[in-house]
Amino acid sequence: MILKVVISVVCAVSVLTVGILIGHFGIDKGSSAPSWVNDVAKDVDEALIEKFLSEVDNMQIQENLRELTKVPHMATTPGDEQTVKLMLERWRDPETGLDDAWREEYMVYLSFPDTKNPNKVTVVSPSDTVIYTAREKEKPYTADQDDPEVVQPYAAYSPPGNPKGKLVYANQGKPSDYQELNKTVDLRGTIAITRYGGAGRAAKAINAAPYGVIGVLVYTDPLDINDGLMSDINETYPHSWYLPPSGVERGGFSTHYGDLRTPYLAAKEDTYRIPVEDITGIPPIPIQPIGFEDAYVLICELGGEAAPADWQGAFNCSYNIGGPGFKQTSAFNSSDVKLETFNHGELKNSSNVMGVIRGSVEPDRYVIYGNHRDSWVHGAIDPSSGTSVMLELTRVLGKMVKQGKWRPRRSIIFGSWGAEEFGLIGSAEYTEQYFTKLSERTVAYINVDIAVFGKKSLRRLLHENVFLVQVNAAGMESTSVYDNWIKYSNWTSPEHGLIPKMGHLTGAGSDYAAFVHYLGITAMDISYTYDRSKTNARIYPAYHTAYDTFDYASKYIDPGFFSHQAVARTAGNVLIRLADSLVLPLNCSDYAELLEMYLSRAVDLYQSKLQTISISMEPLKSAVASFRSAASHLDQMILSSDLAKETPMKVRRINDQLMLLDRAFLDPLAFPDKYAFRHVIWTSSSAGMSTFPGLADAFAKAESSGQSSDWDKVHYHLSVLSQNIAGAANTLVDVI
Amino acid sequence: MILKVVISVVCAVSVLTVGILIGHFGIDKGSSAPSWVNDVAKDVDEALIEKFLSEVDNMQIQENLRELTKVPHMATTPGDEQTVKLMLERWRDPETGLDDAWREEYMVYLSFPDTKNPNKVTVVSPSDTVIYTAREKEKPYTADQDDPEVVQPYAAYSPPGNPKGKLVYANQGKPSDYQELNKTVDLRGTIAITRYGGAGRAAKAINAAPYGVIGVLVYTDPLDINDGLMSDINETYPHSWYLPPSGVERGGFSTHYGDLRTPYLAAKEDTYRIPVEDITGIPPIPIQPIGFEDAYVLICELGGEAAPADWQGAFNCSYNIGGPGFKQTSAFNSSDVKLETFNHGELKNSSNVMGVIRGSVEPDRYVIYGNHRDSWVHGAIDPSSGTSVMLELTRVLGKMVKQGKWRPRRSIIFGSWGAEEFGLIGSAEYTEQYFTKLSERTVAYINVDIAVFGKKSLRRLLHENVFLVQVNAAGMESTSVYDNWIKYSNWTSPEHGLIPKMGHLTGAGSDYAAFVHYLGITAMDISYTYDRSKTNARIYPAYHTAYDTFDYASKYIDPGFFSHQAVARTAGNVLIRLADSLVLPLNCSDYAELLEMYLSRAVDLYQSKLQTISISMEPLKSAVASFRSAASHLDQMILSSDLAKETPMKVRRINDQLMLLDRAFLDPLAFPDKYAFRHVIWTSSSAGMSTFPGLADAFAKAESSGQSSDWDKVHYHLSVLSQNIAGAANTLVDVI
Repeated sequence: MILKVVISVVCAVSVLTVGILIGHFGIDKGSSAPSWVNDVAKDVDEALIEKFLSEVDNMQIQENLRELTKVPHMATTPGDEQTVKLMLERWRDPETGLDDAWREEYMVYLSFPDTKNPNKVTVVSPSDTVIYTAREKEKPYTADQDDPEVVQPYAAYSPPGNPKGKLVYANQGKPSDYQELNKTVDLRGTIAITRYGGAGRAAKAINAAPYGVIGVLVYTDPLDINDGLMSDINETYPHSWYLPPSGVERGGFSTHYGDLRTPYLAAKEDTYRIPVEDITGIPPIPIQPIGFEDAYVLICELGGEAAPADWQGAFNCSYNIGGPGFKQTSAFNSSDVKLETFNHGELKNSSNVMGVIRGSVEPDRYVIYGNHRDSWVHGAIDPSSGTSVMLELTRVLGKMVKQGKWRPRRSIIFGSWGAEEFGLIGSAEYTEQYFTKLSERTVAYINVDIAVFGKKSLRRLLHENVFLVQVNAAGMESTSVYDNWIKYSNWTSPEHGLIPKMGHLTGAGSDYAAFVHYLGITAMDISYTYDRSKTNARIYPAYHTAYDTFDYASKYIDPGFFSHQAVARTAGNVLIRLADSLVLPLNCSDYAELLEMYLSRAVDLYQSKLQTISISMEPLKSAVASFRSAASHLDQMILSSDLAKETPMKVRRINDQLMLLDRAFLDPLAFPDKYAFRHVIWTSSSAGMSTFPGLADAFAKAESSGQSSDWDKVHYHLSVLSQNIAGAANTLVDVI
Repeated sequence: MILKVVISVVCAVSVLTVGILIGHFGIDKGSSAPSWVNDVAKDVDEALIEKFLSEVDNMQIQENLRELTKVPHMATTPGDEQTVKLMLERWRDPETGLDDAWREEYMVYLSFPDTKNPNKVTVVSPSDTVIYTAREKEKPYTADQDDPEVVQPYAAYSPPGNPKGKLVYANQGKPSDYQELNKTVDLRGTIAITRYGGAGRAAKAINAAPYGVIGVLVYTDPLDINDGLMSDINETYPHSWYLPPSGVERGGFSTHYGDLRTPYLAAKEDTYRIPVEDITGIPPIPIQPIGFEDAYVLICELGGEAAPADWQGAFNCSYNIGGPGFKQTSAFNSSDVKLETFNHGELKNSSNVMGVIRGSVEPDRYVIYGNHRDSWVHGAIDPSSGTSVMLELTRVLGKMVKQGKWRPRRSIIFGSWGAEEFGLIGSAEYTEQYFTKLSERTVAYINVDIAVFGKKSLRRLLHENVFLVQVNAAGMESTSVYDNWIKYSNWTSPEHGLIPKMGHLTGAGSDYAAFVHYLGITAMDISYTYDRSKTNARIYPAYHTAYDTFDYASKYIDPGFFSHQAVARTAGNVLIRLADSLVLPLNCSDYAELLEMYLSRAVDLYQSKLQTISISMEPLKSAVASFRSAASHLDQMILSSDLAKETPMKVRRINDQLMLLDRAFLDPLAFPDKYAFRHVIWTSSSAGMSTFPGLADAFAKAESSGQSSDWDKVHYHLSVLSQNIAGAANTLVDVI
């Protein structure tokens, strides 16, 4: 799943750097030198990358997807187990497999509806007669929707319950929405209906409960997903990529990521589990997703006055607030909405499938590439588009290894994560179990979950990343990925001029989260997406519904699978460069550029106020200046060193400085209120400012409360931040 | 300062290992190979070590000590600044200095008495007449005690106040002591008199306050320091090494280490500081140390019944409890004791002096050697014995560097820490400021604070350490340090047979604390101490008094300075081996041996009880077994690898595994109640069991409270511990 993409800075490193290094690395290769002298100096082989690019086959990806999406494969179901076996079989293939592949199991806390007692949403008259019942399952258009394994739409981790009350429309369920509503409506004992977007899934219920709301419905408004289109006669799937009226977005309704009962501990059989009642960050009241077909019926009957303009969706009626409840002229007048949920929690065994290609020169350096394997239903796009790409990538690389044509300098680890949909569980447990080893040795993590988001006609490549990684994507298509990217999404960097734009991995949208936020590992998330100027769709419309099928993907997302191929080539290209480059293709000066932008914004926003209460921003300024100076110095050293005359220890040392840079920004004490968020630069922020997230949030809170203890927290966070940036700068200066 | 020495396991690695490695490292040194091929394969040079040993000069150490102890040099005083300048001058000497030396300042929160209003302890009659006044300063025997810069004995961080109340004897001020006393005595409004030992300094007041005690006195009983001797006519200094009756142990009275107002942050000028009233771990009520001359007068007049036998000290009277207050037959009958303290907190600039010898092959690997520079008074033994040794060591090494005869493989950093006596402040701030850099690169930390504890006739060498480090101390004296050590303190290791015994750095007794407990860096603390079977002295008798002078040290601790020389040779030997060895002289199998011993003890102590509440110890057993297996495997690989045919990357990789092993045991969440203690194996424990400290403490607490939430904490800690040990094992197995 992908939640949001914040676009801001890109840090592309020209291939030149590495070329120059290699050129200078004129080691005397006389016959009496040990054979490893050549090996340690070897750089990435461009011919091999060309070979890789040419072998990536769109039809193989298509067939991978067909195979992966035969049956629904929700986490820990028999369908999931089938995909585990498929991955193992492929990765153990003697002709095209990896060096090794295995399974790692965790016993994790999941939440399921009751197949015998489906969750129900009804309108109930004062005499307790059911006068309207919402759909329990999506309408079938292909055989896929009729599969008995299609799980009923539900909100994972919603508690069971049967609240009944007057219905109110609460927009997106943000804190400000309930606050606004509460001014005129007594929310106690009501059921709120909210639309997806604006707030996290669980947040819609968590934000509601303090006002006395007893149940929440959530649906996808056609405005937010279908560019307003609603008809399944000719407008929506199977006639287009748009969501049919009965489509429902399922989802994990938890704020934290990782197994909810074993915070910071890998969920093994005997691991201590917190009691279910101590779990935080999940809905305290029942919540249930429904299709817009039903939401339409309910919302258009609501009484009161028209809600503010930005609360209105695409229905051809007024979205009213007031009452609460239905309007007097409605057949539902005086009726309540009743929500019956029968979800239950269960400890289940979830598997990660792991595979490895051992490194030759530096096996103790890891490049990790991963994606989750579990879906909500057939999951053709989410996650199987990514898995299909991964399988094609491992097939091509595995073949080169098996044929003895290639072995990467560094080790490559592949992860097919389990139970991501319930909160990034497989990847989070993996990072908890191997915390130290991964922290010490991982060069970068590459995530390819939803490989292709967009319709072909709209597509462009979008990179989210954490600091830099060159992309040499030339020669992939008639229009290169790079050209296409820079055309549709670019910005002008003070340092590099016009370059493609990348987003930042500030949130926990997919399995990169634990790597970035808990381990401080440089990460990127790669996908082909669509031009947001051409559609308002929040995400591809079949997301998390029973329509996310092979049929949908191959007809409406990527006929011919050329976009999948482009993603496989791009991701593989990046992967090979990270694994094979003599000097890691990571650029610390681009980090400096970002810090300077954040600093300049922070000074604009906060300095004058902070001066009035004697909090100095000088330590932050001085830390950013040291960082810039150290980064420039290191860059200069990389460019100017005559490495030919030096020991391979020097290359290793520089690579360690680059690899460990993100680790320097971790502070387990920086965000006491945010579970497993430790990276002081990339952490998510609610303040919505493009500056240091912790500082922005602390400042916003202090400004709103005015309490001196909150200003103390601003000062504290400023010290934490300055110390971390200065500490990171210290790792970049001459090692001594 | 050194608080306690827990002796248990030793892990000596034979020099053989390295020899074999070198022998096998048969790199072809043909003329066409790059020159660094030889450099990267170079191992420690035994001839150079011999040269170092022969050049270490006892008389130079003596003169260093004379120079360092000319005036009192309490932290941040003019005397301290003089020593800063001395260190800088020596380390910048063009003939015998280091590559570079500089000063780093921190603005730290210290506590001082008021020179104009000295703290007072008096006996006051019911009519408010002072009928007895305790000494304000120690009695002078040499000119040193008359120096106006001698600070009045006081308890740093004791609050100011003037409590007055009945006196009670509270033994050592342990929780159990007050608990016992409280059974028969109403402690509300009383002043407690306690002796040093058994509990931390601050704890004596912290433990007292909940019972209503309003002030605390603390003194050193002749039983605990002087083997019972009390007379200054012929028994104590200047006639022997024993403490004169008026001698008072000063000290930092805080439970946490590091600057108290900037937890986890380096105390720079603009750093956020917590309010003084939020400081935790310091005395909540006034406390003041006095000499046993005064304690004798007070205690022998106490009323009530004789205290238990193990509460009795060496005074020739009964230590009574009851009352509270003085006995009816005493001239003090009905009188109160009044304690007036005028201490104040102050932000002061404290300096660390840093020096460096740059490494040649792996400059990004650091061996750190340090000691504090600040004393309470003249501090001849604590800390200047260690500083004198450090200066001699840097003189000999610096000369070799300046003459071009030597440059270590790895960088060596020297630290002369400030404000240790107030709570290890200089070293703690240093580790906070350079946290990431030091974590990534530090091979080991060597601490030599009090170099020589014991009288010559009693001496033996005592090593405290955290896992491994060979000591080749042969040829140092007619009886080698090693022979002497193994003779006086040994144990039989399952693996190595009869070997010298080492203690563990579980506490925060000197500047190694932040390195071990906060950074997880392998550390050792080296000193020559005395045979504890021949004296009951808790520590050398002049500790933290005005008698710890050059005169005292040169007459009674180490005439001729041969023990200092032995320590300098031993520490230098270890330092050179850590800096120059091709493969780090750290042995992970000895860690496995310790874990197995801890496990076996834990199973004996806890398993049957845990089984009854369904908490399994299997994950712990399995983690320890994996650790053993991985450690043996790594050891085997080191011994059997044909490194001659392999890349220097392999040596680096193995060294990284060894260097980072202790880091794997860090968990910032393992001890939420212990400030800056993160190492799950070495953390201090109050349960007093030689097993995993956190488990022992959690179990003791649960057993005492019987609450199920406390048993949950046992289970939780067991999971944390197992995960960390398994995680450490993961770092030792084949890197992939």
